Amino acid sequence: MAVATQSIQELCINSIRFLAVDAIEKSKSGHPGLPMGAAPMAFVLWDKFMRYNPKNPKWFNRDRFVLSAGHGSMLQYALLYLTGYDSVTIDDIKQFRQWGAKTPGHPENFVTDGVEVTTGPLGQGIANAVGLAVAEAHLAAKFNKPDAKIVDHYTYVILGDGCNMEGISGEAASIAGHWGLGKLIALYDDNHISIDGSTDVAFTEDVSKRFESYGWQVLHVKDGNTDLEGIAKAIEAAKAVTDKPTMIKVTTTIGYGSPNKQNTAGIHGAALGGDETAATRKNLGWEYEPFVIPQDALNHTRKAVERGAASESEWNKTFADYKAKYPTEAAEFERFVSGKLPDGWDKVLPTYTPADAALPTRKHSEISLNKLGAVLPELIGGSADLTHSNLTELKGFGDFQKGQFQNRNIHFGVREHAMGAICNGMALHGSGLIPYGATFLIFTDYMRAAIRLAALSEAGSIWVMTHDSIGQGEDGPTHQPIETLASLRAIPDLTVIRPADGNETSGAYKIAIEKSKENASTLLAFTRQNVPNLAGTSIAGVAKGGYTIVDCQGTPDIILIGTGSELSLCVSAAEKLTAEGKKVRVVSMPSSTLFDTQDAAYKESILPKAVTKRLSVEAASSFGWHKYIGSEGDTVSIDTFGASAPGGICLEKFGFTVDNVLAKAKALLG
Amino acid sequence: MAVATQSIQELCINSIRFLAVDAIEKSKSGHPGLPMGAAPMAFVLWDKFMRYNPKNPKWFNRDRFVLSAGHGSMLQYALLYLTGYDSVTIDDIKQFRQWGAKTPGHPENFVTDGVEVTTGPLGQGIANAVGLAVAEAHLAAKFNKPDAKIVDHYTYVILGDGCNMEGISGEAASIAGHWGLGKLIALYDDNHISIDGSTDVAFTEDVSKRFESYGWQVLHVKDGNTDLEGIAKAIEAAKAVTDKPTMIKVTTTIGYGSPNKQNTAGIHGAALGGDETAATRKNLGWEYEPFVIPQDALNHTRKAVERGAASESEWNKTFADYKAKYPTEAAEFERFVSGKLPDGWDKVLPTYTPADAALPTRKHSEISLNKLGAVLPELIGGSADLTHSNLTELKGFGDFQKGQFQNRNIHFGVREHAMGAICNGMALHGSGLIPYGATFLIFTDYMRAAIRLAALSEAGSIWVMTHDSIGQGEDGPTHQPIETLASLRAIPDLTVIRPADGNETSGAYKIAIEKSKENASTLLAFTRQNVPNLAGTSIAGVAKGGYTIVDCQGTPDIILIGTGSELSLCVSAAEKLTAEGKKVRVVSMPSSTLFDTQDAAYKESILPKAVTKRLSVEAASSFGWHKYIGSEGDTVSIDTFGASAPGGICLEKFGFTVDNVLAKAKALLG
Repeated sequence: MAVATQSIQELCINSIRFLAVDAIEKSKSGHPGLPMGAAPMAFVLWDKFMRYNPKNPKWFNRDRFVLSAGHGSMLQYALLYLTGYDSVTIDDIKQFRQWGAKTPGHPENFVTDGVEVTTGPLGQGIANAVGLAVAEAHLAAKFNKPDAKIVDHYTYVILGDGCNMEGISGEAASIAGHWGLGKLIALYDDNHISIDGSTDVAFTEDVSKRFESYGWQVLHVKDGNTDLEGIAKAIEAAKAVTDKPTMIKVTTTIGYGSPNKQNTAGIHGAALGGDETAATRKNLGWEYEPFVIPQDALNHTRKAVERGAASESEWNKTFADYKAKYPTEAAEFERFVSGKLPDGWDKVLPTYTPADAALPTRKHSEISLNKLGAVLPELIGGSADLTHSNLTELKGFGDFQKGQFQNRNIHFGVREHAMGAICNGMALHGSGLIPYGATFLIFTDYMRAAIRLAALSEAGSIWVMTHDSIGQGEDGPTHQPIETLASLRAIPDLTVIRPADGNETSGAYKIAIEKSKENASTLLAFTRQNVPNLAGTSIAGVAKGGYTIVDCQGTPDIILIGTGSELSLCVSAAEKLTAEGKKVRVVSMPSSTLFDTQDAAYKESILPKAVTKRLSVEAASSFGWHKYIGSEGDTVSIDTFGASAPGGICLEKFGFTVDNVLAKAKALLG
Repeated sequence: MAVATQSIQELCINSIRFLAVDAIEKSKSGHPGLPMGAAPMAFVLWDKFMRYNPKNPKWFNRDRFVLSAGHGSMLQYALLYLTGYDSVTIDDIKQFRQWGAKTPGHPENFVTDGVEVTTGPLGQGIANAVGLAVAEAHLAAKFNKPDAKIVDHYTYVILGDGCNMEGISGEAASIAGHWGLGKLIALYDDNHISIDGSTDVAFTEDVSKRFESYGWQVLHVKDGNTDLEGIAKAIEAAKAVTDKPTMIKVTTTIGYGSPNKQNTAGIHGAALGGDETAATRKNLGWEYEPFVIPQDALNHTRKAVERGAASESEWNKTFADYKAKYPTEAAEFERFVSGKLPDGWDKVLPTYTPADAALPTRKHSEISLNKLGAVLPELIGGSADLTHSNLTELKGFGDFQKGQFQNRNIHFGVREHAMGAICNGMALHGSGLIPYGATFLIFTDYMRAAIRLAALSEAGSIWVMTHDSIGQGEDGPTHQPIETLASLRAIPDLTVIRPADGNETSGAYKIAIEKSKENASTLLAFTRQNVPNLAGTSIAGVAKGGYTIVDCQGTPDIILIGTGSELSLCVSAAEKLTAEGKKVRVVSMPSSTLFDTQDAAYKESILPKAVTKRLSVEAASSFGWHKYIGSEGDTVSIDTFGASAPGGICLEKFGFTVDNVLAKAKALLG
């Protein structure tokens, strides 16, 4: 077809397609197939339905859009450019996938305004979208009044076959259906092609029926390539059903318009090449040079700027009205959105002395969490079916359930991975919520991709992990973390804290809340078993990551470094060594990740280079400890899998006793 | 009901229940709810259907049983005891969950004969069961003859609500439905209770409909507490359908028989307590002391010994007949089952010199894998939809698909987690198969729980991971491993190898195959980008984990330690330093995990204590390297997330250049 015969819609859709084709052709890297096939649904969505303000990408009440099939990032960059976002210029598109560009390989919210969440690892986006919809539902239930709806937006997501194969998407879809999140609308780009070829090789399930089984409304647009009206009607029907999320299966042709490569795996993840690009131009009647968009198309798509300004202005009026009528609620809403914590919030965190009863740190966690929950209404979260083991209930704040979205205790079910990504979505809603997710420490293995993405995408999620060592006991090696702490400490930008007692638990929560407000994620590891409250531990100490809790006169003969439940072993061993005339320092190291960020002088003051006899004591892998113990140090650690027996027996059998700490310390002292 | 009125079936079922109740009461730890509720289905299955030989738990053609709801371990121990396995005596049951017992908290195949796979982490078992069924289907297609079926068994699995909430179970069920594994039969203990209470709080999807959407036959036994005939008929119906797996939803009452705790979360994971145990005895008419099983029950259940001997004897005849008619195939089958590798198998692994073309190590991996595939028919596996990126196709050996089970290329779809657990199931089938699973290294995060379980449960799975650094390039930080290698190296009993070139790739595969035969798992990390073949690298060197490839006269001034794609930077830097008169050693460290297992003398010979100036060079996190570089060493590493740009640019920008290695080395030399 020639351009002259193209409707304005076709012109816009082809603009998306060729921005993708040309950018990928220039960078010789990327995934043109999805943008070419999904351009019609994306255009209809962004043109007719979505409310957003390109000139204020963070406008609170915008509809959220998630490209769960993140490899199709050029679709999103094309939309941002065409609708007038300042974050993506035509020059940015020409720099697709280049060093320092605003247009990285996969959408990154921390790089490109207008991108809500970071996608690419498949299935994360749809689960993030559930989190965004949870945030909207919660805030709407909390703040809206019969005469003033200040929280009222949709969450739209485009996902592909790959997302639908990943288990995390099933987990997320199941819980979204359970909650009946009516303002969550997913468009499934059903193109029958994945990297290995036709989905017939591995994916022949009935996806629609599956989503029905989760309690979703399911619709089907049979011709997603050209039936724009069908797409629009489906989105309307999706919006009409308010008590269920909707999945619209949109059957498309991957790489639509490429005469020789469409509907093949060849167009999924590689540039078309010069010849096929030319053939595609011809086939779609596209007479423009690379990166040239016809003015008619731009004129049309850039109307989004005006629409967006009007939407925001209308909302501003609604909010002004709300503020006049409900000043208290409005002030709270504004505080939420500003990300400011209420004054003195951290004063509620309890402190302890050695006279206080020994408790498991998970119990201290419950106390801190509930103290904080009372003063921080933005704190919301729950457990993956271990509420009463993790001790993460916010007492008196009810269960978040269908029709009870104002409540703050979320039952995620046994769905750790979705829990992680849902928390991330809530954090990235940008409305001040502080989400937390809990399970046994060992099951971070099930949600590791989401934990990593929290750190990468600057989501202030808090991970509350209990049963943090072989002290877990009878459940045995499948449930006992060994390498888990090390594997989490290695993740960039994730703060891992393993507090030793009540004071350190309070300190850990102080950090976690502050970090959340800095868009950084924290993982807390708590014991199942009792630990004593120790002299010298402090909230301030935790902030340093490592600090001295027992010291001697002059240069120590040896430094004992302990974390969590093993810190008390160090203290007891130090007492005995001191009684024998040794000069001993005990360093509590609740967070090596925080300690690493201290300046050199502070680090030297805690672990002086001159003291080479150092012993770390942690009921976990020695992996990573040599950085702190140095060449001449040693560890009390466990580098094998655990065993099923009562926790105290496990700890004893694997050498976590004062006697063994003492023996190893003496061996070092020679 | 009094005992006198109990049928023999009821007596046996109550025997299971009270073994669980009494063992958990004694240990004050465990999960009685599932064994009490699932006892009827388990009894019917083990009494009427399953073929197994208690006196030879490893009899090849046994039906495989998997308790995916592993927390109900006492169900399995009760069955093993009652049916006459020597591995579980009444004394073992009294030692439930105690140090050194044969009856750990969750079923562990490496502890207890008769347990096929290690379960507990939810959803793994059902995915393992898919792997067991894949193994059976493959071997049946490969070895069976129209007149002699030597491979012919079912795989049965009991799973619960928790398993069904986990994404991995959805992934595994979807691919099992795709393959049409007719001999896979899952009994879903539908008891409506999870740890947080009623499944109504988080799990209200229509599970049956979901399994139908995957292509399974779905049946329902409405009264799983007492309708033994209904259970039996359902299993018969399941066996009658041979081209689809079957899911039998068996609705039960958790903790059946406990008058005050049944059907509550209170009985899920805690002992009943003395009063409730007494009340349950009364309620079920159970007049026996703890751990006393009525002789009538034992007489009945122990018939399994006779049945088992007969089944095995019959099969032995079938096999003898087969061997007579098909000696070649029989010899091969016997070799498979013996776990012996064919003589000289490793001779096919290629070696290289620096004159050979630079290739990505993933390409070397493809070459090695295909060379091995030709001589090791037991090698079978594939990728999670990245076959042509991972380069893991065994050329000429066809795709494993419905009706084509003899083939060896498995398309797992974008289902990394299920892939891992399916490979583990295949390995633990015990028939000599060497399964491998492939994806990008970063996506080990999606399958980490399965990788850990491979190591723990002694499954000889091989993980082929490509795109092993920021050299991955344009896909950006979501796809670039940073902390991934460290996090994997920390897992006990997992051998991680990152080869530098062709020779080291051959060496890595030699180790991986040998380890598989020792029931140990290996993870291989390969580059996307080209690397040169280096002088001094060798297959034998890889086996040491770390070895010298460039050396100097006398004691080195500095040791450069490199892995994978960065080893060549060390070699180049060493040349320049040597030219400047420095004494330099280059150590290749493809596997720190293997190096750690060497004796002290060897380690000292490679990294002498006297040489404190050491520089590690790896395009990954520094986490873990201080063990090898010591207190005075340094690293060329990356401790932040990566970036989207061409791989060469990423490596350069993050300092993986000869110049930067040189600069850091010189800084160390002072």
